[in-house]
Amino acid sequence: MKIINKLKKIGEELTSLAHIIELLHWDQETKIPKNGAIERANQIAYLSELYHKKSTSDEIKKLFNEINFIDEDLIDNEKYSVVDRAFLKRFYREVNRERKLPTNLVVQLAKETSLAQAVWHEARVKKDFNIFAPSLKKIVDILKEKADKIGFKTHPYDALLDEYEPFMNSENVKNIFKPLQMGLTEILKKIRTSNSIDTQFLSQNFSVKKQDEFGRTVLKDMGYFNDSGRLDISAHPFTVTLGANDVRITTRYDEASLFSGLFSDIHEGGHALYELGFSKNIQGNILATATSLGIHESQSRMWENQIGRSYKFWEFYYPKLKKLFKNELKDVDLYDFYRAVNNVSSSLIRVEADEVTYNLHIILRFEIEMLLINGDIEVKDLPEIWNDKTEQYLGIIPVNDSEGVLQDVHWASGLIGYFPTYALGNIYAAQFYNKIKNEINDIEKEISKGKFNEILRWLRNNIHSFGSMYSAEELCKKVTGETLNSKYFLNYIDDKYKKIYKY
Amino acid sequence: MKIINKLKKIGEELTSLAHIIELLHWDQETKIPKNGAIERANQIAYLSELYHKKSTSDEIKKLFNEINFIDEDLIDNEKYSVVDRAFLKRFYREVNRERKLPTNLVVQLAKETSLAQAVWHEARVKKDFNIFAPSLKKIVDILKEKADKIGFKTHPYDALLDEYEPFMNSENVKNIFKPLQMGLTEILKKIRTSNSIDTQFLSQNFSVKKQDEFGRTVLKDMGYFNDSGRLDISAHPFTVTLGANDVRITTRYDEASLFSGLFSDIHEGGHALYELGFSKNIQGNILATATSLGIHESQSRMWENQIGRSYKFWEFYYPKLKKLFKNELKDVDLYDFYRAVNNVSSSLIRVEADEVTYNLHIILRFEIEMLLINGDIEVKDLPEIWNDKTEQYLGIIPVNDSEGVLQDVHWASGLIGYFPTYALGNIYAAQFYNKIKNEINDIEKEISKGKFNEILRWLRNNIHSFGSMYSAEELCKKVTGETLNSKYFLNYIDDKYKKIYKY
Repeated sequence: MKIINKLKKIGEELTSLAHIIELLHWDQETKIPKNGAIERANQIAYLSELYHKKSTSDEIKKLFNEINFIDEDLIDNEKYSVVDRAFLKRFYREVNRERKLPTNLVVQLAKETSLAQAVWHEARVKKDFNIFAPSLKKIVDILKEKADKIGFKTHPYDALLDEYEPFMNSENVKNIFKPLQMGLTEILKKIRTSNSIDTQFLSQNFSVKKQDEFGRTVLKDMGYFNDSGRLDISAHPFTVTLGANDVRITTRYDEASLFSGLFSDIHEGGHALYELGFSKNIQGNILATATSLGIHESQSRMWENQIGRSYKFWEFYYPKLKKLFKNELKDVDLYDFYRAVNNVSSSLIRVEADEVTYNLHIILRFEIEMLLINGDIEVKDLPEIWNDKTEQYLGIIPVNDSEGVLQDVHWASGLIGYFPTYALGNIYAAQFYNKIKNEINDIEKEISKGKFNEILRWLRNNIHSFGSMYSAEELCKKVTGETLNSKYFLNYIDDKYKKIYKY
Repeated sequence: MKIINKLKKIGEELTSLAHIIELLHWDQETKIPKNGAIERANQIAYLSELYHKKSTSDEIKKLFNEINFIDEDLIDNEKYSVVDRAFLKRFYREVNRERKLPTNLVVQLAKETSLAQAVWHEARVKKDFNIFAPSLKKIVDILKEKADKIGFKTHPYDALLDEYEPFMNSENVKNIFKPLQMGLTEILKKIRTSNSIDTQFLSQNFSVKKQDEFGRTVLKDMGYFNDSGRLDISAHPFTVTLGANDVRITTRYDEASLFSGLFSDIHEGGHALYELGFSKNIQGNILATATSLGIHESQSRMWENQIGRSYKFWEFYYPKLKKLFKNELKDVDLYDFYRAVNNVSSSLIRVEADEVTYNLHIILRFEIEMLLINGDIEVKDLPEIWNDKTEQYLGIIPVNDSEGVLQDVHWASGLIGYFPTYALGNIYAAQFYNKIKNEINDIEKEISKGKFNEILRWLRNNIHSFGSMYSAEELCKKVTGETLNSKYFLNYIDDKYKKIYKY
């Protein structure tokens, strides 16, 4: 067997193993009987160890040596196809990264973050950061060591960020976020001085069964399901890939909230369509994964916001929704409904934030994480800095730690360097969507008819099919002719909200 | 680490892996989106290969050598605890058996039986055995080779049977089946000359939703669920173990059949309670499995028949059922219902057979398999022999191959030597139940109140908790003081049906 084929076979086995681990997770979150949980954790740990061992095996290293692969940018272009070159680059990069991490560090991080879940939960319930601080300190120390082991050029944050947004660095992020923050602050000021939106009608109960029926209709129209997906209930919504043609999403409905389940359905549907869209010639290959979490998020957010929160979308769907909730929505017309969907209000909680304020939540986390991982601030300083920045960016101050520094589970899970991908996703989404509007005639007319096949085809051809063949940056240039910048996002927000708020 | 602990750790890893493979199966049968099936098959194959490699590794052999383990009956009793001795014996036996099989034979059998599924299905639809014959010939040839590789003393069938019913051999089975066949034939004659039972009321539609509600009530009363199980729908009912505290069952309901889903629920519930009852000190150990399929089946059949088809059972449950199916059952009283539950009629299809004729279906399969695997008959002779024996044992002749030799998927799946365990299960069930009746006072009164905790406790203490610590034969002697014999089963049948048919 040719060496590259040996490497590909190992890659396929790793992909298979990753999909199996995902099934164990999916079942754990959606179906498992309560008493099965402990043993399931052991099963996941067992396969995860197997995965780690396999992906850091000397065999892989030996095979790369045999083809004299020493640097990801120095591949003999004559010898390999485009796909094979991309495969070698990506695989080498990932394996190399994994191998830099000593097993005891991986185990330690897994252990501490596992223990930290309950501690974070208790701290949050008791609204007391001090309970969580010792756990978080341990995790931050391990992550600092992790960054050192992986190595970085200018800032340790880059080593962590790279795991979620490969090839991106913190300097880039800063340069993208700076004008974004300024632009959003401007817009937010104008919105604050405009008339507020009446959302009174949302304070009713909306049957969960009907929400589910409606959500499934939208997902089906988007092109999801199609014998390759399913929708289940879990505590927190997620998308999971169990195979090239088996990508599942979860949701949770709340009778008191008409929007949270629905927009979560659309959001996860967008993630799932990405995972289902990898081209056949990379299926099973390690390239059949999202090229970055930012790109992944761009897919979910575009469906959720640019499409799902647009007037045209509700032109088609509001009559259907009204039919389901006859009494609840009888006095609400389309325009009022649309405005309620897009109500802007500075809130303390990220996951409840609207399109305008959302990125400000991310920027403050990014800035704090940078300081923390570089040792410029300490864990104990976090609540104060958090509250200061929240006031600075959002104009409000958390009344307690649960509404502030304790609100997200990410740090307890060891996910520092992850938050920026949410905002990058929003910016990518706007930049891509601007291109789509230029390239697809009558796209808004299509949306107003509940037709999304043109959009999905465009996304498949231009983004989904490539998987990880191109880096996020390469892909962005290829698709939009420019590198990522916040201009399109700010234009999109300004255009939309100046109409809604008439500022 | 002590050698035995090393072996136990490998055993635990194998158990974990087996449970994970079972989850892949369960999901495939109950939840998977249609297009996920092909990749799932590859995932199962991948983990199965891993399992095979692990269980036949030289490491295991080396460890057994290091403790001078050369024969399963020659363990140094001083050195090991009872559990450890049982573990070593069982593990050595299984590993030894696996190692005798060349990988190419295992792969070939997997391949041929996988291909044979569709061929068997086509043959069955077209009612033509000739379509299936070439596939079956290949499978039989491989199984003959398998028997040779494994080795046997007197009959090649023993080597195959041993996989499903360890320590049992065909001579034993013959000796048990002979009086069973004679006894059942006698009883059947008497039933045939009695008045038949009116089952007209069963030819109605029974809401699937209500069937499900009722089935769940019974399962809960049996002691199932309890945060350690769940019930889902699949094409064929099965029980699957995903962990010591996660044992799931499936069912299928048919509006046209009130009984098939319900008794399937009870049957699988019986299997599940066995798997959930292994004692804590063998959990994770390879001993935490059924000691034989016959014992497994004894648990499902006892719940289904001795309990679920008893008059006392319906004394409690018929009023509940009648409440659910007010119109459908309004003219049917308890006694008539009970008789309909136990209606005996020679039918061509095993899975539809009643308690009296069921074992005759098994005996004919056992006799045919013995001849086939020994080369006394050839695949092409099967339809004729099948029909002859059906006439001889059941008094009816299949009108086509689908109602005869093609009715079961077992042979297409390579399961020769498996059928006898169904009848052995019935016989074990009767022998155990006779003991239960002697040991638990007022057991029938308990049943007539829908109370099963005494029964379940007895089953746990006497059977479930041991897992594979004792062989089926040892267990039977331990529990009943006798080896397996058909006397109790024949008495049970005769006592019950002479009252029902008044012969």
